[in-house]
Amino acid sequence: MAQTTPNHTQTVSGWAAQEPGGKITPFIFKRRENGVDDVTIKILYCGMCHTDLHHLRNDWGITMYPLVPGHEITGEITKVGSNVSGFKVGDRVGVGCLAASCLECEYCKDSQENYCDKVQFVYNGIFWDGSITYGGYSQMLVADKRYVVHVPENLAMDAAAPLLCAGVTVFCPMKDNNMLDSPGKKLGVVGLGGLGHVAIKFGKAFGLHVTVISTSPSKEKEARQHLGADDFLLSTNPKHMLAGKRTLDFIIDTVSANHSLGPLLELLQVKGTLVLVGAPENPVQLPSFPLIFGKRTVKGSMIGGIKETQEMLDLCGKHNITCDVEVIKPDQINEAMNRLAKNDVKYRFVIDIGGNGKSSEPQKISNANL
Amino acid sequence: MAQTTPNHTQTVSGWAAQEPGGKITPFIFKRRENGVDDVTIKILYCGMCHTDLHHLRNDWGITMYPLVPGHEITGEITKVGSNVSGFKVGDRVGVGCLAASCLECEYCKDSQENYCDKVQFVYNGIFWDGSITYGGYSQMLVADKRYVVHVPENLAMDAAAPLLCAGVTVFCPMKDNNMLDSPGKKLGVVGLGGLGHVAIKFGKAFGLHVTVISTSPSKEKEARQHLGADDFLLSTNPKHMLAGKRTLDFIIDTVSANHSLGPLLELLQVKGTLVLVGAPENPVQLPSFPLIFGKRTVKGSMIGGIKETQEMLDLCGKHNITCDVEVIKPDQINEAMNRLAKNDVKYRFVIDIGGNGKSSEPQKISNANL
Repeated sequence: MAQTTPNHTQTVSGWAAQEPGGKITPFIFKRRENGVDDVTIKILYCGMCHTDLHHLRNDWGITMYPLVPGHEITGEITKVGSNVSGFKVGDRVGVGCLAASCLECEYCKDSQENYCDKVQFVYNGIFWDGSITYGGYSQMLVADKRYVVHVPENLAMDAAAPLLCAGVTVFCPMKDNNMLDSPGKKLGVVGLGGLGHVAIKFGKAFGLHVTVISTSPSKEKEARQHLGADDFLLSTNPKHMLAGKRTLDFIIDTVSANHSLGPLLELLQVKGTLVLVGAPENPVQLPSFPLIFGKRTVKGSMIGGIKETQEMLDLCGKHNITCDVEVIKPDQINEAMNRLAKNDVKYRFVIDIGGNGKSSEPQKISNANL
Repeated sequence: MAQTTPNHTQTVSGWAAQEPGGKITPFIFKRRENGVDDVTIKILYCGMCHTDLHHLRNDWGITMYPLVPGHEITGEITKVGSNVSGFKVGDRVGVGCLAASCLECEYCKDSQENYCDKVQFVYNGIFWDGSITYGGYSQMLVADKRYVVHVPENLAMDAAAPLLCAGVTVFCPMKDNNMLDSPGKKLGVVGLGGLGHVAIKFGKAFGLHVTVISTSPSKEKEARQHLGADDFLLSTNPKHMLAGKRTLDFIIDTVSANHSLGPLLELLQVKGTLVLVGAPENPVQLPSFPLIFGKRTVKGSMIGGIKETQEMLDLCGKHNITCDVEVIKPDQINEAMNRLAKNDVKYRFVIDIGGNGKSSEPQKISNANL
């Protein structure tokens, strides 16, 4: 494993959990030397995704400890291998969820590495050399060039970090379902969190009519006034839901709590599509009637491939889209993780890894909800 | 309602249930006169669909009594209205589930009448004149020409009857998902009943590799030897299901019992599609992981439009496809309904309405399983 792999000679400071649900504390570990196909990245910021929390708590029973989470990484290149072209020292780059894949299957060949049967993630994965991968809650990363993307110059590095996971997760289904070039189409966004708020921003940038569907009446003002949503449906209000029947073309469902897809499917027009991007632990309920009578579709989608990730970032550059983030210091990770468990964040915590100064105004973390 | 609508002057003998779960007994009622857009059909055969049973028992709480079920109708035209072209007296025709639709919405204009918001079914519906519709368990039908199709000369009228519902129900999703012209693609058929056995026949006719997935080991021989399936997976056998992972392109799920889609989705390749055509009363379980990690799709589909129904019948004529049926006499309807409730039929009961002789060898109904 990492510590015993011969070429893992570089000492890195990071933050790790040592056991399920344990505190995340400073952790010194080794990374591999920069190989010919690698770039070394000085990590500036790393977003905190719900997946980090799931892994921390070992919710899925697959966590290997020590766990260094983090797959929404932005930073600067400090070294490039001899086979690397397209990147140079000083480049502003990002790394998302992917660390390795087979490179030979049809999905890898099509840059859909995320669906490769042998895909390995940037943390809690097994790299080609057999080492366990450690993620972005650390000061330095060695990454194969294939899984690295450029961050446009106009995007703040802290607010851009969550685009690497949250951003591409909602971007890909929008692209797959022709929402990038269908102005006027009606998009529904279910759940107003890290993923949902980016979906609204994409929707407005692409000229869509955006309806937010939420269980929280308190989110209406935020959705409309701050994020520019055109409409708001309170999913617990039958009148709202009835009025919304057969009105939407496409729904992105970001909710990871247990829920039924029935009332959401009713909002779709005939042949409309709902894409599930949240990952509820228990099966969601799928009533057959709204599916069958409306010839509707439910799809799954998981992050995105590397080309798609670059395309998404380039479009974010063009439309000046970043995430709304709350920047924290590394010693606030545990506090932030507690708040994340309660969805008490607008809309993503981002760790200022290097303490190198913040590229957008940091907000003070509050203890009020702890 | 039917009896009080002024132009409902034609007396018809049929079979009806008078109350939820009641016996189906002879019933005399009125149908409208043949209008300018109507054809009158002497009914020869009518299939018995599970939907008939659901309506009989008022499972969905929407049944109007007296109920004359039946939406898999074949017969001969005995009269045509003055506006009718394309049909003449003596034509062999079929009528499926549809009796009326708005004719003006985008779905009607595209001959997807089945998704019209105002669609009315051939029984337990409300026709344009306000009358309750009575179905094919009767000796004569007056139908608007729009909802009538031709039955190819080479198809037996009894064995063709179930094509009007069961056939088009599995045909449409195959067409929508490019299975008609993709020889070699791998089709999974879940459930070997009225719908499933036709799906296998279509699959083989279109050159697909057909795998049957069933909970009943006893169905393997039948599926392979009689229906020509290429493969069989016992869904209760974890080894079978593991060996089948990521092997199928497309699955038609005909099961109306409660079940989880998870194990079925695992059988699909990345980006594979499962279409639900059964209508389980309770929501099916949809685990998010196999959906998301495989970028898979779950679709619904309900019967088909009229053009699709004609296209399906023409292809059945070309490939000589009909259903495997057990022909019964009208006084055996209740007995057959009891067996249908136990799925004890291979694969569809068809009522010899007119007692005009059977176009294929009738089988004796057995009491063994009653």
